[in-house]
Amino acid sequence: MNFITQNDIRDIPKLVQEALELKASPLAYRHLGIGKTLGLLFFNSSLRTRISTQKAAQNLGLESIVLNTNDGWQLEFEDGAVMNVDKAEHVKEAAAVMSQYFDILGIRAFPTLENQVEDYGEKLINAFLKNASVPILNMESSTQHPLQSVADLVTIEEYKAVKKPKIVLSWAPHPKALPQSVANSFAIWTQAAGYDLTITHPKGMELSPNFVGSATVEYDQKKAFEGADFIYTKNWSSFNNYGQSLQNQDDWMVTQEKMNLTNNGYFMHCLPVRRNVVVEDAVLDGSQSLAIQQANNRTFAAQAVLKRMLESL
Amino acid sequence: MNFITQNDIRDIPKLVQEALELKASPLAYRHLGIGKTLGLLFFNSSLRTRISTQKAAQNLGLESIVLNTNDGWQLEFEDGAVMNVDKAEHVKEAAAVMSQYFDILGIRAFPTLENQVEDYGEKLINAFLKNASVPILNMESSTQHPLQSVADLVTIEEYKAVKKPKIVLSWAPHPKALPQSVANSFAIWTQAAGYDLTITHPKGMELSPNFVGSATVEYDQKKAFEGADFIYTKNWSSFNNYGQSLQNQDDWMVTQEKMNLTNNGYFMHCLPVRRNVVVEDAVLDGSQSLAIQQANNRTFAAQAVLKRMLESL
Amino acid sequence: MNFITQNDIRDIPKLVQEALELKASPLAYRHLGIGKTLGLLFFNSSLRTRISTQKAAQNLGLESIVLNTNDGWQLEFEDGAVMNVDKAEHVKEAAAVMSQYFDILGIRAFPTLENQVEDYGEKLINAFLKNASVPILNMESSTQHPLQSVADLVTIEEYKAVKKPKIVLSWAPHPKALPQSVANSFAIWTQAAGYDLTITHPKGMELSPNFVGSATVEYDQKKAFEGADFIYTKNWSSFNNYGQSLQNQDDWMVTQEKMNLTNNGYFMHCLPVRRNVVVEDAVLDGSQSLAIQQANNRTFAAQAVLKRMLESL
Repeated sequence: MNFITQNDIRDIPKLVQEALELKASPLAYRHLGIGKTLGLLFFNSSLRTRISTQKAAQNLGLESIVLNTNDGWQLEFEDGAVMNVDKAEHVKEAAAVMSQYFDILGIRAFPTLENQVEDYGEKLINAFLKNASVPILNMESSTQHPLQSVADLVTIEEYKAVKKPKIVLSWAPHPKALPQSVANSFAIWTQAAGYDLTITHPKGMELSPNFVGSATVEYDQKKAFEGADFIYTKNWSSFNNYGQSLQNQDDWMVTQEKMNLTNNGYFMHCLPVRRNVVVEDAVLDGSQSLAIQQANNRTFAAQAVLKRMLESL
Repeated sequence: MNFITQNDIRDIPKLVQEALELKASPLAYRHLGIGKTLGLLFFNSSLRTRISTQKAAQNLGLESIVLNTNDGWQLEFEDGAVMNVDKAEHVKEAAAVMSQYFDILGIRAFPTLENQVEDYGEKLINAFLKNASVPILNMESSTQHPLQSVADLVTIEEYKAVKKPKIVLSWAPHPKALPQSVANSFAIWTQAAGYDLTITHPKGMELSPNFVGSATVEYDQKKAFEGADFIYTKNWSSFNNYGQSLQNQDDWMVTQEKMNLTNNGYFMHCLPVRRNVVVEDAVLDGSQSLAIQQANNRTFAAQAVLKRMLESL
Repeated sequence: MNFITQNDIRDIPKLVQEALELKASPLAYRHLGIGKTLGLLFFNSSLRTRISTQKAAQNLGLESIVLNTNDGWQLEFEDGAVMNVDKAEHVKEAAAVMSQYFDILGIRAFPTLENQVEDYGEKLINAFLKNASVPILNMESSTQHPLQSVADLVTIEEYKAVKKPKIVLSWAPHPKALPQSVANSFAIWTQAAGYDLTITHPKGMELSPNFVGSATVEYDQKKAFEGADFIYTKNWSSFNNYGQSLQNQDDWMVTQEKMNLTNNGYFMHCLPVRRNVVVEDAVLDGSQSLAIQQANNRTFAAQAVLKRMLESL
């Protein structure tokens, strides 16, 4: 069983329940991973994802070994390449070799934000899927961050007061051009879990239609916030004007004034968050912020996914 | 229970005894840490501290996960900051999130050596103390290195011939400007443990009065060495002329000739040590050098501290 | 028991058998390393060696802790040095201290490729052998890579059809100047294991006579390939014109056409390999390539060696 997109999980609500059960008893399956090894391959640096995934593995008795490619490991991805320049290893060997050392291989690889076709084709992770013989765990790829989305769904499950809360994904200002992956994932996973979603962002910041799905797009942020139960904020760079950021949009910051338009809604963010740029202190430090809880749920989301992967070996 | 300064340990001689007991039976409490995780957060690189603390954790069955911030993790510490430049995460989130992943959080953060008020206010470690909800372990902060001091006290306990040996802290030459933390810590912990201390250094290299305490300051190094049972050598930069180093002081190097003035005294250094700058080969390679033993005791000092922290959870 | 060269193993065929037994039952000795720690000290970066050695340790219940000196740890090796420049620690202290933290110390340190006397004198690893008090594991030194060679012998044992197959070591083109260590090791270990060896390379690329031993040197690559059962390909820089690479030798690449000269021979390479420079795709992707299997055997080679080292403690 690979864990790459929402399509790898047919029963998302059940996975969310399993994560909550593991949160209640983290060491209940401590022997499931004994004698097995999880490789964690980072093409981009990570804090929360690495630690929460290592913790999840540890709770399952699964050893983890971390690899950072920024130590100078450059991979070739092209078939037939004459490798006489900088790339010392082809993904064919890399994936095949690591499939022998690890029982599950986690991969993080951010998009280039330059080549939309390559990024949305998930070139890197697909090359590993093709060449590896062990299950692949997506620790944030070019277009998705599904472990974050499962943690977000677990958090919504914990805090929702009604079966179908109003969930809003709200674009945020940010000084840098960021991937669309968290936003894409949140959009597609909430809908796959059966929720309705409203997405609000400035014109020009539309997400890929494949991830927007049946969500309502509302360009008026305040209107979107009205009656909302959950506000999920995140910056992303443009999909259509690929990889370009949008600056001088300070009025898209989430403020307490805007939160007052909601149904005493919760504030969500995947962290790290830039205070007083993405969201003002009053909201993040307020009682309705779930950002810290989301980060905690990363452990149990990963543990639920790894548990299923281990059971499928 | 935090472990930040000597004030966190009321019964220092008892802690020293516990470290010696763990040295005799390192695996005696192997199940104390089972299912628990120690986070080791390094804002500055480390060799001895990381390994000895990981070994100590391992001896207690405690898992450890290392984080190095030099992988590009820049934290904001100011309240109310508008985070639109380089800092991607505020210590408020960082500390709160890590408190969920770890049962104990170790932190190493060296001083700036530029801003005395900030350094001696222990800005960074205090920000974690304020925002974390798990115990904090000081792995060398701006002004103290208490794990080193406990290891030093364990070593003195092993080698002292009389109840109240004469202990001398002697400033050493060094090509770089170094923190005062090891010297500060050694001064305050030996006194807190009930020892008399003599500190010798060139004029202008006085330590902070808060750390000197009731120690005797003797500017004549040879006079200080007379009759000493332990010579603890270490460079530090100036406290008063903050962060400035003092060069061309080769005559402060510890030589065998000077050691001959002592009561067949032991030589101590926390390592790493620059040979023939801080101390000449004859002393470091001689039978009275305890530098290697001190490094070994780092494991058991950390283990005694972690054992108490685990028991207090 | 140290593991530095072929001379540390008197019964190489038996060690190969032990590796194969461990491959069949990797967890059979899971309790041998309990409570013990393996230090892995990398002066040069590593992928396969680090992971396979960590896996091997893990299979034996042995904890491993990794140290990378490129985090800024510069060692002094000269006796009597006045350490007032860049080196902060002498190997005397480094080795003695690590001998207290670790039960076995693995070291990787590549050659300078500038100073043949220093490299072939194995200056660095010998300094550790001299100053450490625990067994040393060679994870690739200036002149040898014995863990690779044991894995290679295990692979040959698995695939050989006759008792004394024809084994050929064939020099390969490469854009960079590489160490001779893998080639040296393969040459000396195959012969120590009782095999005949043919080495083929362009004139000027002779290996050190100490490693060539009784091998046949054949400058005509095609002639060398005739009737071969195993073709082991690897680039190395010149021993005589020390450290110099030889460029524009594309005709030394291993092709399917050349492989057709062999006795349906197997292709071997230690990886990483530059496709279509060292070997053409058709060979590496063909059914006779053993490169992936060799990488897998790295785990069991390391495990067989570590098992013996643990038993000798």
